[in-house]
Amino acid sequence: MSTLTVKHCLEIPLASLDDNKGDADRIIASLKERTGVSLIEFPLDIVKTVPSVIHSCNGTLTITVLSDGDRLRTVSIEAGDTTNSHFGLAVDMGTTVVAAELIDLNTERSIASAGETNEQVEYGEDLLTRLHYAGQGGVFKLQDALVDTINKLIGEVCTAARIDPFQITAISAAGNTTMTHLLLGIDPSPIRREPYTPVINHVPILRAEELGLKVAPQAPVYVFPSVGSYLGGDLVAGALAAGIVESDDVSLLLDIGTNGEMILGNKDWLLAGAGAAGPALEGGVVECAMRAKPDAIDRVKIDMDTFEPSYSVIGNEPPVGFCGSGLIDVIAQLYLTGLLDSTGRFLLDKKTARWQRINDSMAFILAYGDKTGSHKPIYITEKDIQNVLRTKAAMVAALTLLLDSVGLLITDIQHIYTAGSFGIHLSVDSATAIGLYPRLPSDRFISLGNGSLRGAREVLLNAEKIRDAENLADSITYVELNVHPGFMGIFRSAKYI
Amino acid sequence: MSTLTVKHCLEIPLASLDDNKGDADRIIASLKERTGVSLIEFPLDIVKTVPSVIHSCNGTLTITVLSDGDRLRTVSIEAGDTTNSHFGLAVDMGTTVVAAELIDLNTERSIASAGETNEQVEYGEDLLTRLHYAGQGGVFKLQDALVDTINKLIGEVCTAARIDPFQITAISAAGNTTMTHLLLGIDPSPIRREPYTPVINHVPILRAEELGLKVAPQAPVYVFPSVGSYLGGDLVAGALAAGIVESDDVSLLLDIGTNGEMILGNKDWLLAGAGAAGPALEGGVVECAMRAKPDAIDRVKIDMDTFEPSYSVIGNEPPVGFCGSGLIDVIAQLYLTGLLDSTGRFLLDKKTARWQRINDSMAFILAYGDKTGSHKPIYITEKDIQNVLRTKAAMVAALTLLLDSVGLLITDIQHIYTAGSFGIHLSVDSATAIGLYPRLPSDRFISLGNGSLRGAREVLLNAEKIRDAENLADSITYVELNVHPGFMGIFRSAKYI
Repeated sequence: MSTLTVKHCLEIPLASLDDNKGDADRIIASLKERTGVSLIEFPLDIVKTVPSVIHSCNGTLTITVLSDGDRLRTVSIEAGDTTNSHFGLAVDMGTTVVAAELIDLNTERSIASAGETNEQVEYGEDLLTRLHYAGQGGVFKLQDALVDTINKLIGEVCTAARIDPFQITAISAAGNTTMTHLLLGIDPSPIRREPYTPVINHVPILRAEELGLKVAPQAPVYVFPSVGSYLGGDLVAGALAAGIVESDDVSLLLDIGTNGEMILGNKDWLLAGAGAAGPALEGGVVECAMRAKPDAIDRVKIDMDTFEPSYSVIGNEPPVGFCGSGLIDVIAQLYLTGLLDSTGRFLLDKKTARWQRINDSMAFILAYGDKTGSHKPIYITEKDIQNVLRTKAAMVAALTLLLDSVGLLITDIQHIYTAGSFGIHLSVDSATAIGLYPRLPSDRFISLGNGSLRGAREVLLNAEKIRDAENLADSITYVELNVHPGFMGIFRSAKYI
Repeated sequence: MSTLTVKHCLEIPLASLDDNKGDADRIIASLKERTGVSLIEFPLDIVKTVPSVIHSCNGTLTITVLSDGDRLRTVSIEAGDTTNSHFGLAVDMGTTVVAAELIDLNTERSIASAGETNEQVEYGEDLLTRLHYAGQGGVFKLQDALVDTINKLIGEVCTAARIDPFQITAISAAGNTTMTHLLLGIDPSPIRREPYTPVINHVPILRAEELGLKVAPQAPVYVFPSVGSYLGGDLVAGALAAGIVESDDVSLLLDIGTNGEMILGNKDWLLAGAGAAGPALEGGVVECAMRAKPDAIDRVKIDMDTFEPSYSVIGNEPPVGFCGSGLIDVIAQLYLTGLLDSTGRFLLDKKTARWQRINDSMAFILAYGDKTGSHKPIYITEKDIQNVLRTKAAMVAALTLLLDSVGLLITDIQHIYTAGSFGIHLSVDSATAIGLYPRLPSDRFISLGNGSLRGAREVLLNAEKIRDAENLADSITYVELNVHPGFMGIFRSAKYI
């Protein structure tokens, strides 16, 4: 097991009149001797740095390499012994938020992390708008926005860790199929048109410089493979982190984000599908919903007798909205307190001052305007709830069909890994109460946190995981559920709590 | 045996709803199936061309690849079957003249060739001036000049052959150590300072785009390895073309150009050295000397009785100077007709109107002003002759020491391969008469023509020759003759004809 890039400190014999070898040739010969690998790739850009490094190194230099099949690819050379400073960057390229983690590859510790809004939002809040924009010639603007976002994160984590960005010699990134295409500067819009074909699933290991990432120019950039248009490298990374393929037990990986995506299987088989119900659980569709960040209500409880809600807010400030976990909590609480029926309609005969008509729709007020940071009330409407139940129904239909196709029942699922920004904060009890999560004992649920970022980190720490990830992606049978004849039937009947 | 790049015409199955593979993945899978090679490098720039090629190819495309160790490196993809058009470019990067040859890799025929003055002459006629300029920060200007010269040649040969430069998918180039460094954009000036260390001898296979060469952007550019500061890839290419290492016979490769460089050996051992006597045989040092091109006197004969010279001119126009072969001819003829003694002094007691004092020096007039294109006389001075004899002495000293070191005599040399622009036109009789070539039967002399270009062409036609060239360079023991204690003694005594 070795990290994605490896550093070797070499003693380079001084040039002499008897030795006609070039400086670069002597470095390569020394590396061959050290590693026993006879094929060394030494890119032109590295050759160009040889004179200054040789001049200042006093016979000792450090070479960073990537193992690639039968050869080593040179990533950087530095004067002196710099083996103590060895850093990699894990990146989760989310549609809404891009997250990065700086890893000390010597200690295997995360030494800084950061998250930023994906600058692509300037060109569209949701994925569909951006896909449309890409198809209209906006690919390079979208690529620049994503790369700028990652560079901003690189700056932040490097400042926090007090290192130079050029000391980062390895990057591992995961994102959905669209983000992966856009990182590469490739138009992803064909993935939303029949026959829904990506340009590329298995991405070659790239160099930071090719993408405009401001780290060591030749740093390898590993991008997790997609499985198809609707199943991206973020899920593959999550499945890798969950270790689904390492066990006989049947596991389910659930990522409820822009789409409800899932991978079901074990070491012998893997199925995947997505319940594409639109971004109901993210901001925009549900009126008062927002991302999980300071000022968002993330937990809600409603009193059984008084119907008065209580809540907690991220950062303990007056709230301005609720995040996904708050949304699921409030629906579950409304249902459990008898304020909501199983079809998702309010039971208005239950007396509470919190029923109010807002914009032609009935709403339950979670926080009055005098308690909020925006001085506007925070509430949920029946329409909001219908949107969530559609997402839930799509998830249930997808999972039911996947289980059906292998003759398994929900109870056969031993482990449920939840991933995605939504899954981090979600209350398992609330999610199972409304049926968004399958009704299984809570000890079967494991939150991966940001599974995409975790998978990316694993590759940085163990280069062999690249092969595992590529094989994992190849082993997945993607079931196109939206066109499945049974989908709509199950979907309709699952729209109830 | 296969050409440097290989073209494969593939049938790509159309995308379908059941197949979640990306377009690039399907191309790669098809190539794997065709070739049995499981590792395919598919650079990002090629990925980016996939959508337009897939869109226009109607299921048939042609992929050009380079075999590289355990993998195939993708060079280009084109819609349709383009296997009939497969072109490579061989380049000789001379200090004075850069020559190129366009090779049809299907028929193995040279279909166009061209030569142009190296645009670097703007920064200095000779190598030393350019090395100095490079050391003063002029590297990139010198690189641009060389690359521009090659691009000009690419334009010329492609126009002549009526092909698009992007159809060239392989380049093989050879030049001296300085030209090789400058092509790569690396400062070569340290090679003229102790300990005379090049930055790099064995150059990785580059991509045309990295160097600014206007052919298929990912076309591999193979650059012949240097052996040391004074022995470059041009000699290695010549030795490869001569096949020195394929025989038990002892062979000598002689390249009399800016330096007098030589490789001596057979399949078991190889020695190399250079008699660095300055560019006596090129224009600039000898007053009326010029490059071998139209208007240059290339052959001279002097009548034994009348001492009247006759000559032939390249292009049959009134001459403006003499090229290297004319120069050697005239010295040999002056000596053989008794107008010159063995120390290189004119015997002025021989009566002829052709003795004239020009600029304080005695000269022999080869052509009076009324017979020349420039209306100025063409002549040779004693000083010119002393310069040539110094070059000759350096060559003799170098060869003597090389032979000495392996206990061989001149007569043990079975084959003498002459290379370089100088060697192409040189009269073996004249060169042996003045001792520039060893005195051996004329049937042992073989003119390689432009040996550097021939070696480059061999690599284009047979990729395995790359390994041969790299091994050849590694097998050569370079003998630093100028610092050899015996050099000056032999040099002094060899300054006589």
